[in-house]
Amino acid sequence: MWDTNAAMADDQKLTPRATDFSAWYNELVLRAELADYSPVRGCMVIRPNGYGIWELTQRAMDDMFRATGVRNAYFPLFIPESFLHKEKEHVEGFAPEVAVVTIGGGKVLDEPLVVRPTSETIIYGMFAKWVQSYRDLPVLINQWANVVRWELRTRLFLRTLEFLWQEGHTAHATHDEAEARTRLQLDIYRRFQEDWMAMPVVTGQKSESEKFAGALRTYALEAMMQDNKALQAATSHNLGQNFAKAFDLKFQTETGGTDYAWNTSWGASTRMIGGLIMTHGDDVGLRTPPKVAPIQLVIVPIYKADAERARVLEAADKIAASLPGTRVEIDRRDGMTPGAKYFYWELRGIPLRLELGPRDLDKEQCVLVRRDTREKRPTPLAVLSTAVPTLLSEIQADMFRVARDRREANSIRGPISYDKFREIMDGEGAFVYAGWCGDAACEAQIKEDTKATIRVLPDPEFRSPQAPTTCLRCGRPSIAEALWAKAY
Amino acid sequence: MWDTNAAMADDQKLTPRATDFSAWYNELVLRAELADYSPVRGCMVIRPNGYGIWELTQRAMDDMFRATGVRNAYFPLFIPESFLHKEKEHVEGFAPEVAVVTIGGGKVLDEPLVVRPTSETIIYGMFAKWVQSYRDLPVLINQWANVVRWELRTRLFLRTLEFLWQEGHTAHATHDEAEARTRLQLDIYRRFQEDWMAMPVVTGQKSESEKFAGALRTYALEAMMQDNKALQAATSHNLGQNFAKAFDLKFQTETGGTDYAWNTSWGASTRMIGGLIMTHGDDVGLRTPPKVAPIQLVIVPIYKADAERARVLEAADKIAASLPGTRVEIDRRDGMTPGAKYFYWELRGIPLRLELGPRDLDKEQCVLVRRDTREKRPTPLAVLSTAVPTLLSEIQADMFRVARDRREANSIRGPISYDKFREIMDGEGAFVYAGWCGDAACEAQIKEDTKATIRVLPDPEFRSPQAPTTCLRCGRPSIAEALWAKAY
Repeated sequence: MWDTNAAMADDQKLTPRATDFSAWYNELVLRAELADYSPVRGCMVIRPNGYGIWELTQRAMDDMFRATGVRNAYFPLFIPESFLHKEKEHVEGFAPEVAVVTIGGGKVLDEPLVVRPTSETIIYGMFAKWVQSYRDLPVLINQWANVVRWELRTRLFLRTLEFLWQEGHTAHATHDEAEARTRLQLDIYRRFQEDWMAMPVVTGQKSESEKFAGALRTYALEAMMQDNKALQAATSHNLGQNFAKAFDLKFQTETGGTDYAWNTSWGASTRMIGGLIMTHGDDVGLRTPPKVAPIQLVIVPIYKADAERARVLEAADKIAASLPGTRVEIDRRDGMTPGAKYFYWELRGIPLRLELGPRDLDKEQCVLVRRDTREKRPTPLAVLSTAVPTLLSEIQADMFRVARDRREANSIRGPISYDKFREIMDGEGAFVYAGWCGDAACEAQIKEDTKATIRVLPDPEFRSPQAPTTCLRCGRPSIAEALWAKAY
Repeated sequence: MWDTNAAMADDQKLTPRATDFSAWYNELVLRAELADYSPVRGCMVIRPNGYGIWELTQRAMDDMFRATGVRNAYFPLFIPESFLHKEKEHVEGFAPEVAVVTIGGGKVLDEPLVVRPTSETIIYGMFAKWVQSYRDLPVLINQWANVVRWELRTRLFLRTLEFLWQEGHTAHATHDEAEARTRLQLDIYRRFQEDWMAMPVVTGQKSESEKFAGALRTYALEAMMQDNKALQAATSHNLGQNFAKAFDLKFQTETGGTDYAWNTSWGASTRMIGGLIMTHGDDVGLRTPPKVAPIQLVIVPIYKADAERARVLEAADKIAASLPGTRVEIDRRDGMTPGAKYFYWELRGIPLRLELGPRDLDKEQCVLVRRDTREKRPTPLAVLSTAVPTLLSEIQADMFRVARDRREANSIRGPISYDKFREIMDGEGAFVYAGWCGDAACEAQIKEDTKATIRVLPDPEFRSPQAPTTCLRCGRPSIAEALWAKAY
């Protein structure tokens, strides 16, 4: 038997998570060839191994959006600078972090163009042209696009100057319909992140100071990474009539009057891949949930002589052909030991490995090895076409359960002193559910003291059985339970 | 029976193609809601009806690329200005038409960033980092992305400042392997454009003056529009070692030496949708080939009383459910006559319409109406599940045949005087196959005289049975047959 650890030279090993989580993350992303730094500061190259995850992500989310009546479209990359200024809060939020095109075709432009940091302004400007009557509503649009935000401190996938995302934009006749769409999208994100990425999330509303610039209300999904920090995995905004008023998006109502439309916007980005890595990776490398794994099963043929090679590869081809619903790769490379191949694919997070040698073939069996638990399971070839899909489903479910259990084990509820809270945030971190007085100044002070922020005011199902009565810091009456954590 | 033409008020009719082809095109794009102008000069909004065609295009081409080993990735939008300057011909070709970001995060940048007009420079810069040995080759990468070229005269889909495309980039160990990939991609584009878009193309090599800036050789596919002008539908470039030398993309050869890699790049864009419209549209509106039609069959229920409505809609639902392989839409809108609905969907180019009323149901039949020929075919409900797919295949094949016949009817081969050539190019236009002396000055003079250019030096199967012996203009010996046409 080949042993993966033995095949792994010391200089190939990742820095352990416990030693330096941040170094572990960067090394994993680079060595698993998920992404790479580019010559442009803060911009990344998404390599095929990472992009493959994004493609599966796109397809799954897109199908979920479409099932609720959303259609895709595409709006321009460039936004006239004056557009950004039409919604007061929006420009305050985004103007400091935009990239600006000032030269086009060799000439200085009369009006500079902003590279979209998000597309509310250009999209609602178009909606205003298309919507006349209540009969034109709702408008349900999504676009898959790149956006640019001029961040100073960047991390591959987590925070880059340019990133890929989808941004949905809708227009409705009433506040309630807009609110229902905002919540529906939050629910879709949750289903995707939990069922596909095996990444448990806490949903809820953002506080005023954390909401989207220009929104009435922002909802978000927060996932816990293995360093106990939170990652905002997606957001959904009820924009009220703020943008409709700024862009004169009016419609004739059913009763003959006119009203401004109610908008929502909602987005999820390549950042989720960073979340996937930090939720599931281990000291050996990536672990990819099967449903978003570009390769779900890798077959490693084991042979010494040439005669064995032909026999084993032929059997591998047969196995691959017998698994039409599974994404299979056969590692045919010569001049590489099986152990080196195990290491190669474990680093890259392939959920399931199938080891196949002449002696296995003599016994009409193979060995299946789970990436998540590294459990080895000798399996008769005859049952593979059911065993593989079943095992992939088990892995998917187990990865979610393990991640959720870990999150719960690192969540703190119930009365907690502010000193204890500071100690936790200075140390190992946690998701802390605690009371909040509702005062933005108090929230800001806690952030200054501990770097922890209110991630969300959790939705009912995530709230503690006993509602907290006093604010974590100031002791005044609590107006809402808040989830506190340090965040990416 | 409802009559479409009667339902079409005069002000809703498109300007006929024969009156003003260009006006017809613009009106069709806007009224069929395929695209719209944006507030940024020269940038377009691709609306769901147009974007749906692009999505089917993407999926089909992507599958074809993937089947040949290509994997998708994503590279940054921004390119350091210095990168563009590393390949001499490349910068001469593209520098005059780039958009430049000079401000980021409120500060003037030390080095301006070019918004990618194409990504050779940034991609081969990364390849140089990834490729060490012949064992790392070939690299076969594609990206779906937006690019920006600062055009002065723009047309929706055909020429816009920003457009969507795919750009493939590969690296190989030998010239011959790169050349084979260049030709393979040309062949893939042809299969896609002919089999999916029903748009016949002529393939061949570009002349030196028309080739890609920085390429060794450029191959292209040229389609004839209904105004007899050519549209370049995609290009595939053998880049030689030009970029490898500029970006130090070297590898250790199998024999222990070092060599520069050989690159290819190839791209197709949203421009193809403009080609589809100008190939297939008629004076009523768009005609979409079924394989790229987001809606392939629209069911128009016909009823007067409410009781009829429920019965007809129920039957429509059953029909839709019985056609799982067909993209079906049921037009449930009330307060709109069937005739108005026919007009609505004909303008939008849905390939097949199914009319269904109470009397049809009594006879257990319906009427199928082809968009391409407007032929009506009463069809028993019992055979729909085979009749509809069959009819869609017929429409697909017929649309290709009609387009090819039209192209052939407007192609001129054999000896032609320069005066006659000028008369044709001044008038109705054509694809003219004629001899060429190989002199760029002669080519330029013909362009100046007639606005016609060499579209390609056609591949063998498109060449005339009798090779031309003299140059169209100067009468010197011909070195190659050339396809001349005015072009978009």
